[in-house]
Amino acid sequence: MTVQRILIVSGTHGNEINPVWAVNQFNREENRIKKGIEYEYIIGNPIAYEKGCRYLDVDLNRSFKESKNYHQYKNTIYEINRANFLVDQFGIDGSKPCQIAIDLHTTTANMGTSIVLYGRRFRDFCLAALLQNKFGLPIYLHEKDKDQTGFLVEAWPCGLVIEIGAVAQNFYDPKIINRFLIIISSLREEISKLQNKLIELPKELIIHVHKGSIDYPRDEKGNIDGLIHPERINQDWKMIKKGDPLFLDSHGIVHKYDGDQLIWPVFIGEVAYKEKKIAMSYTQKEVIYFKNEWIQEFERL
Amino acid sequence: MTVQRILIVSGTHGNEINPVWAVNQFNREENRIKKGIEYEYIIGNPIAYEKGCRYLDVDLNRSFKESKNYHQYKNTIYEINRANFLVDQFGIDGSKPCQIAIDLHTTTANMGTSIVLYGRRFRDFCLAALLQNKFGLPIYLHEKDKDQTGFLVEAWPCGLVIEIGAVAQNFYDPKIINRFLIIISSLREEISKLQNKLIELPKELIIHVHKGSIDYPRDEKGNIDGLIHPERINQDWKMIKKGDPLFLDSHGIVHKYDGDQLIWPVFIGEVAYKEKKIAMSYTQKEVIYFKNEWIQEFERL
Repeated sequence: MTVQRILIVSGTHGNEINPVWAVNQFNREENRIKKGIEYEYIIGNPIAYEKGCRYLDVDLNRSFKESKNYHQYKNTIYEINRANFLVDQFGIDGSKPCQIAIDLHTTTANMGTSIVLYGRRFRDFCLAALLQNKFGLPIYLHEKDKDQTGFLVEAWPCGLVIEIGAVAQNFYDPKIINRFLIIISSLREEISKLQNKLIELPKELIIHVHKGSIDYPRDEKGNIDGLIHPERINQDWKMIKKGDPLFLDSHGIVHKYDGDQLIWPVFIGEVAYKEKKIAMSYTQKEVIYFKNEWIQEFERL
Repeated sequence: MTVQRILIVSGTHGNEINPVWAVNQFNREENRIKKGIEYEYIIGNPIAYEKGCRYLDVDLNRSFKESKNYHQYKNTIYEINRANFLVDQFGIDGSKPCQIAIDLHTTTANMGTSIVLYGRRFRDFCLAALLQNKFGLPIYLHEKDKDQTGFLVEAWPCGLVIEIGAVAQNFYDPKIINRFLIIISSLREEISKLQNKLIELPKELIIHVHKGSIDYPRDEKGNIDGLIHPERINQDWKMIKKGDPLFLDSHGIVHKYDGDQLIWPVFIGEVAYKEKKIAMSYTQKEVIYFKNEWIQEFERL
């Protein structure tokens, strides 16, 4: 079996509107099929998108762990129902089965254009390698974080997130839209090439592996009492070492990074993560080497 | 009578969080009185601020027209009650009367640091002149727009808005906070100087007078079908003429400005104005000349 249908999701978070606009440019009859692969374009959370909010009840992009509890949650939590619907419809055993899911997001952090992977799935490495090879994009590998699970693409046998920022929630930015247009277009090209053995994957991937998250300094009532330090804001993907400033609190005190290991922060100051008590996440760099199994697994999709 | 007490409001819109942080730096006992003037620092919409949203029921900064209908609206609309409370407490006839109100806002538009005036009140001209003289800030004069009334500072005999952007809603930006710190500090200095006749106002003010607003192109269902054109985004305060691009719709069609007069757009793409059907407002430039009455009226505060 090969890739027959690919799901492209935008608006998984309803206030990330630039990918929705970009996807609309592709969602026309003449674009549905490209070199034998059919594309399904869908808004992940259409009601949140209409309201201009991230979600209604819970974060849709943490709701794909609950699929097994379909009946228990039915009609109570909108996003759980929506996750189940998407899997029932477009999941690998759904009525319009998609082998790959691409989920398009924006961030208020200055991440540039980046790729997010969940766990070390060989098929995902293939897609990520295609994009890193073509554009040199950084890859954020999210794994082993028990506080954050249930991501959309994990419910498909292959998939990744494209994350572009900095852009404000609900703000249309033509530059950001243009980056999505380029990425979607390239993915359509490159996946076809891979499927038809017209492209060779690079020998190595450079990844940033998620190691944990850091909360803001807080006062005795639990309110945030610290800004991202002026030297740290917008410095996503830049290495820091012990003693480098992280936060500046309301008394003018600088809170410094006191770990011994070098780390590379990401999602610095992401607005939507305040509720998750995350001021930034941090990663470490790793090089992983191409194996033939990547391709073999991709071909078994 | 002279200025005895000044009200500094932040968080009139609950998701504009940078001025709240800046004001907290001043809201300490040792800062309450400066050269004989007492300062009251207050969060305009504390519940919206806690929730991270612009408002609960209606826009607080359009709710100050309803003050006369206190009893009619009591306990039904949060922001109307809140507006009435603020006037009862800090209005010129309130229990802690303030002669001047300064309302601090942020915008997602690339406006830089600017001053907003409502109508042509001589006392407001004095304050605006102090700031334009010191920092060269642009002044947006909002008048004669029946669709937008009930602004907070209009309920005080003197007052203005400081509007700083671009910054995303709910995103702490140390650069933006720093600009508020400078402005608040300067206002405290300059108003004291004016009060004590230690400063001369400039001979003229350059203002941008509000002339109207332009909505996004919309499809037959009323949904937005046009981005701010890449040549127009972030170009607040820059003059445009007939034929200059305004929007780019989903079919790639450029929508152009077709008026005969030169205009200077502001609040280009402001996220919060989508619900007001405003893609941008536009202004025309005007020079107004200093009159002694400005000072005389200020001294009668």
